[in-house]
Amino acid sequence: MNETLIPDASTIRQAQQRIQADVRRTPLWRVPGRQLGLDVAEVWLKLEHLQVSGSFKARGMFNRLRSSDVPAAGVTIASGGNAGIAVACAARAAGVPCEVFLPEVSTPAKRAALAALGAGVRVQGAQYPQALQACLDRQAQTGALLMHAYDQPEVVAGAGTLGAEIEDEAGLPDRVLVSVGGGGLIAGIAAWCASRCRVEAVEPEKAPTLHAARAHGAPVDVDVGGLAADSLGARRIGQIAWAVSSRHVAAAHLLSDEQIARAQRRMWDELRLAVEPAAALPLAALWEGLVRPGPEERVAVIVCGANLDPARLSA
Amino acid sequence: MNETLIPDASTIRQAQQRIQADVRRTPLWRVPGRQLGLDVAEVWLKLEHLQVSGSFKARGMFNRLRSSDVPAAGVTIASGGNAGIAVACAARAAGVPCEVFLPEVSTPAKRAALAALGAGVRVQGAQYPQALQACLDRQAQTGALLMHAYDQPEVVAGAGTLGAEIEDEAGLPDRVLVSVGGGGLIAGIAAWCASRCRVEAVEPEKAPTLHAARAHGAPVDVDVGGLAADSLGARRIGQIAWAVSSRHVAAAHLLSDEQIARAQRRMWDELRLAVEPAAALPLAALWEGLVRPGPEERVAVIVCGANLDPARLSA
Repeated sequence: MNETLIPDASTIRQAQQRIQADVRRTPLWRVPGRQLGLDVAEVWLKLEHLQVSGSFKARGMFNRLRSSDVPAAGVTIASGGNAGIAVACAARAAGVPCEVFLPEVSTPAKRAALAALGAGVRVQGAQYPQALQACLDRQAQTGALLMHAYDQPEVVAGAGTLGAEIEDEAGLPDRVLVSVGGGGLIAGIAAWCASRCRVEAVEPEKAPTLHAARAHGAPVDVDVGGLAADSLGARRIGQIAWAVSSRHVAAAHLLSDEQIARAQRRMWDELRLAVEPAAALPLAALWEGLVRPGPEERVAVIVCGANLDPARLSA
Repeated sequence: MNETLIPDASTIRQAQQRIQADVRRTPLWRVPGRQLGLDVAEVWLKLEHLQVSGSFKARGMFNRLRSSDVPAAGVTIASGGNAGIAVACAARAAGVPCEVFLPEVSTPAKRAALAALGAGVRVQGAQYPQALQACLDRQAQTGALLMHAYDQPEVVAGAGTLGAEIEDEAGLPDRVLVSVGGGGLIAGIAAWCASRCRVEAVEPEKAPTLHAARAHGAPVDVDVGGLAADSLGARRIGQIAWAVSSRHVAAAHLLSDEQIARAQRRMWDELRLAVEPAAALPLAALWEGLVRPGPEERVAVIVCGANLDPARLSA
């Protein structure tokens, strides 16, 4: 394990300064547990789905872009999900070109959304690995700044600003629950918290990257699928996330698609939060009793994204 | 004008104490104006659409219920909108019976939603006035506590707790923009602010109750229709709202259905706030340039409800 991969507090503070004008300070909604049907003192809902680009990814992408000398060719990424959207938003805001590579399996709706943000959309290869290869080949030609969805130090430090923002507003909670795909978000938050509070991962059973790495003792490829594959569908936990989580993440819980879907629906029905499946995992873990904090605890949950078709929430 | 109708600060503070355990303290999201494309210092988005029952109405209904001796017959109201939903929620929470009267024009979806909250749903009369008469007739028989959607002192004082909550968290802004139907919300907020900051009304052109009353010098019936009729479709401004607004509301702006729809869409596309049309009027007034605050101003907007079919926000 490479501890030098773990961003320190001053790196995260620098990121916070760097992206301050680009991203939104999202609301931290502190709700008594009983108002959510939970026997805990408070639940802190960090409403990060209200972030620029519709997810927390904007923090990392702005941080990488703003801390780099962006070449004339601009920036590029292979992603059909929130990372691609965030890169397109950051590039537009910074006025630099942007190419996003998608595989042929991507939906026309995603391509249109990226094009509407001003990105050059390149559909290449049958599946994601081929689209990634096309992106890398093209980047080798153009010299564009390569953006990674989760496994670059600036991207993780950007995600870490979420932890700093929570602490600045309310101090640290007793526990934080964070959804995990490639692990960029939990890496940033756990690096910030640095074992000063309990950080726990929540993952879909059908995309258990961190759970599998912990069982195996190292990052390992997993099959991915299920409801949240769109945003938590990385095949393997990132190297940085692995280094941080080995040191600062206390547990990794698995949730079924049914549990995730139930929480997503309940968040709309009872709280009027329209969120994507990935953002429902932390409350699912509490509502389903997989995580049982003590009655005096203040538990933070990161509501990480809202890039969904709202028609899915229709009754 | 009857000044004794205006709730004072201590009445509103009592309401706040009374309903504290029943309602949520909703987030106040302070965003730099430039991040919303506006040349103002800050916009304060009071995310009251995240309130219990999906709208601010819960505050007034809980306040009336909790300050009354509820008879064995429970509570009753004629409403197919947010007031009916809020009464059903309050009755369920308090464990008292609830009858809601709707006209035959009401949709099956609304009837089902009220029934799911445990209300007795009574469909009587062709239109709203007949449903109201049926409600009054029944109330005279049963002695149930009659709830009004906006024109009762406890209901207005409950709405006023929103103003107190904003001031408790952040002090008073320079200006507040509030959607108006029957006027319960603006009455509460303007009563709290009591001309200590500028309170302005925003209304649909197709349901201009306050605008018409100001032109006429007294409350007067208007034709109602259009996009926001569901929640801003009162035919006449309430007596309490008229008394308060004559003294403490600086202006009443009218918005077209097109302007309202554009803002509702933009709130989803750019901010991931899924709200009903009525909740989009304040930002519509700013985005469309109908209200032009100074560049140093902090402007509060009340995001008042989210009782919509989210499929409407689908791209």
